[in-house]
Amino acid sequence: MTAARFLLALGLAAAAQAAEPPPAACAVRGTGDLGIAVERARGSLQWLDTTRKISLGRVEGLGDLSHASAVFSRDARYAYVFGRDGGLTKVDLLCGRVARRIIQSGNSIGGAISQDGRYIAAANYTPGGVKIFDAETLDLVADLPTGSKVIGLEDVPGNRFAFSLWDKGEIWLADLSEDPRQPKITKYTGIGTQPYDALISPDGRWYVAGLYGENGIAVLDLWHPEAGVRRALPDYGRGEEKLPVYKMPHLETWAMVGGLAFIPGVGRHEVVIVDTATWTLAGVIPVAGQPVFVMAQPDGRRLWVNFAFPHYDTVQVVDVPSRKIVQTLKPGKAVLHMEFTPRGEAVWLSVRDGNRLEVYDTASFGKLAELPAEAPSGIFFTARAHRYGL
Amino acid sequence: MTAARFLLALGLAAAAQAAEPPPAACAVRGTGDLGIAVERARGSLQWLDTTRKISLGRVEGLGDLSHASAVFSRDARYAYVFGRDGGLTKVDLLCGRVARRIIQSGNSIGGAISQDGRYIAAANYTPGGVKIFDAETLDLVADLPTGSKVIGLEDVPGNRFAFSLWDKGEIWLADLSEDPRQPKITKYTGIGTQPYDALISPDGRWYVAGLYGENGIAVLDLWHPEAGVRRALPDYGRGEEKLPVYKMPHLETWAMVGGLAFIPGVGRHEVVIVDTATWTLAGVIPVAGQPVFVMAQPDGRRLWVNFAFPHYDTVQVVDVPSRKIVQTLKPGKAVLHMEFTPRGEAVWLSVRDGNRLEVYDTASFGKLAELPAEAPSGIFFTARAHRYGL
Repeated sequence: MTAARFLLALGLAAAAQAAEPPPAACAVRGTGDLGIAVERARGSLQWLDTTRKISLGRVEGLGDLSHASAVFSRDARYAYVFGRDGGLTKVDLLCGRVARRIIQSGNSIGGAISQDGRYIAAANYTPGGVKIFDAETLDLVADLPTGSKVIGLEDVPGNRFAFSLWDKGEIWLADLSEDPRQPKITKYTGIGTQPYDALISPDGRWYVAGLYGENGIAVLDLWHPEAGVRRALPDYGRGEEKLPVYKMPHLETWAMVGGLAFIPGVGRHEVVIVDTATWTLAGVIPVAGQPVFVMAQPDGRRLWVNFAFPHYDTVQVVDVPSRKIVQTLKPGKAVLHMEFTPRGEAVWLSVRDGNRLEVYDTASFGKLAELPAEAPSGIFFTARAHRYGL
Repeated sequence: MTAARFLLALGLAAAAQAAEPPPAACAVRGTGDLGIAVERARGSLQWLDTTRKISLGRVEGLGDLSHASAVFSRDARYAYVFGRDGGLTKVDLLCGRVARRIIQSGNSIGGAISQDGRYIAAANYTPGGVKIFDAETLDLVADLPTGSKVIGLEDVPGNRFAFSLWDKGEIWLADLSEDPRQPKITKYTGIGTQPYDALISPDGRWYVAGLYGENGIAVLDLWHPEAGVRRALPDYGRGEEKLPVYKMPHLETWAMVGGLAFIPGVGRHEVVIVDTATWTLAGVIPVAGQPVFVMAQPDGRRLWVNFAFPHYDTVQVVDVPSRKIVQTLKPGKAVLHMEFTPRGEAVWLSVRDGNRLEVYDTASFGKLAELPAEAPSGIFFTARAHRYGL
């Protein structure tokens, strides 16, 4: 078919489908205001425009997306989605389609993209270990067996990845800067029992793992890796009495504002304040339920908190300087995730049982938009391409 | 997108994918890794790809670009360039051409884009005042006469702009959140003599103006605007003896790392360390000349410093924890600007008299690329779209 006839055919198709672009069309547009929302049950994504606050369509065929997460290419065009079925799917946000998809393991828990954007690392449960792929082709670059489930895989400045071994209680650093096919591995052993999630601070300095098997957290100062991993917050965790914990809180988005970290209390109805200069407790803020995510607005002025069952219909907003709750929202059952626009004028929420996304003005708390979505969970915007640990 | 525009976009996309795009073609590509370098004498831009470390071409016809600066649309497709001749030019980075251009005043010193991306504000010398434009059309939205030259115009969370009045010694806040055609103005008077530049901290909390007419700085805590502007650092400035100052240092990119600000000493061969909890002096770091820009890598681990004449061929790198100089580079005469890639694996330098851009690996200090450019000055990458004050 000639280019002209091809375009004509496409044009007819476009006319027939009115406003919805056909799946094979690719747009000339900026990618800084795009995003995705995971539709976990359906194995699909909603493909989002955060300027117009609309969905650009649906991308299907991503497999099992329960607990799925995503990272973005450095040009902000592609999302890399890590699925629970071990699938790694590269989604083209300009064309609204799957660009590549591989099954890279039996069961994956998440991943990261290297500082230079050239490598994707996936953390695996089954059979464990970390695999590193070329971001362009998804070809395997390195396979790092660990003999353990891997959790809390994060990108670290210096083209490194940090991750934790659930079964062994270790933190590893893999340095790709010299030879990505044979990363240099540094191992920290005895960091605590059953690390279950980890984060890297927004400045890329602190790698922190939460512990499931005991109280406390493990802290690695990447400015001083030679000092090793230390334990902190000895009372933080499930407690001696093993409080009923409805959902272990996520660490990935602990809020860090001006030398303080605001973190979910485990099994407690409180946000815990930690001084990151000393990694000691600095206070608590009582909230409506067991927090799952404690997220700071990009300006650090307010925290947005969602909760585990049975308070999972609620979102509370905390004013940082006064530490007071300034707003309680009830978007609906199962608010699973929150994502701020890059400069924080709006926040998007996924309301799973309401089958919708909601968009709120962060200043007025007014609802700006509602979008239908099928049992949505994670929401991820392309500006994450330019941040550590996101 | 209408069907016609959609088809046009597709046609251009097909052309772009055929081979090297002709200058008028528009590419289907992500925009997260694009940028510009100003060629001031020629009135043009180099249009940059930071992944491949190449120039995508030159955009001409931007008028007088001496001391030009730029901000980016929230979709990271367009650069808005503020020229010294009062020109405001919207450049399309997918098509490599001027999308719109207006002469909005006699003489402009810079500008900002609102938090929601809908408004562009320009700060003017002649006849003074601030003009606010629609980011899409560049139509005038509001005209704010000030009776003074305006400097240090910055975007502030809450869809506000902050700016300073050179002739009056005032700081104004313009709030666009209710009615952008009639912004609510808050004025702070008596903030000091001749504010000559200002910054907003990366978290959007602190608005700080440097003073030319006296020593000290003016600090506004935007978390507590009712507390007013206070004066700080009484010994900071040109001094009683009026040291010879070869170039007043820029404030816009003062480095802020973990509760400290690292700022250029005025007329002195030192970087000044300020505790931002109290805005008091916390130390100095001796360096090779009078600093112009003191910039922190995105991870905050190192500072990169360039200098005024006669040390303008030098760049020094300071390790933040030890406060020691770890590298001295001599890229060539007149290193005017430095820009980090969003996650900081590389830094781009403009070497004006060498007619080139240089790209360095921030970990190894190895030179990664050289690109010809005609007397380049400012370098700006699209990830600025997602930050305050950039």
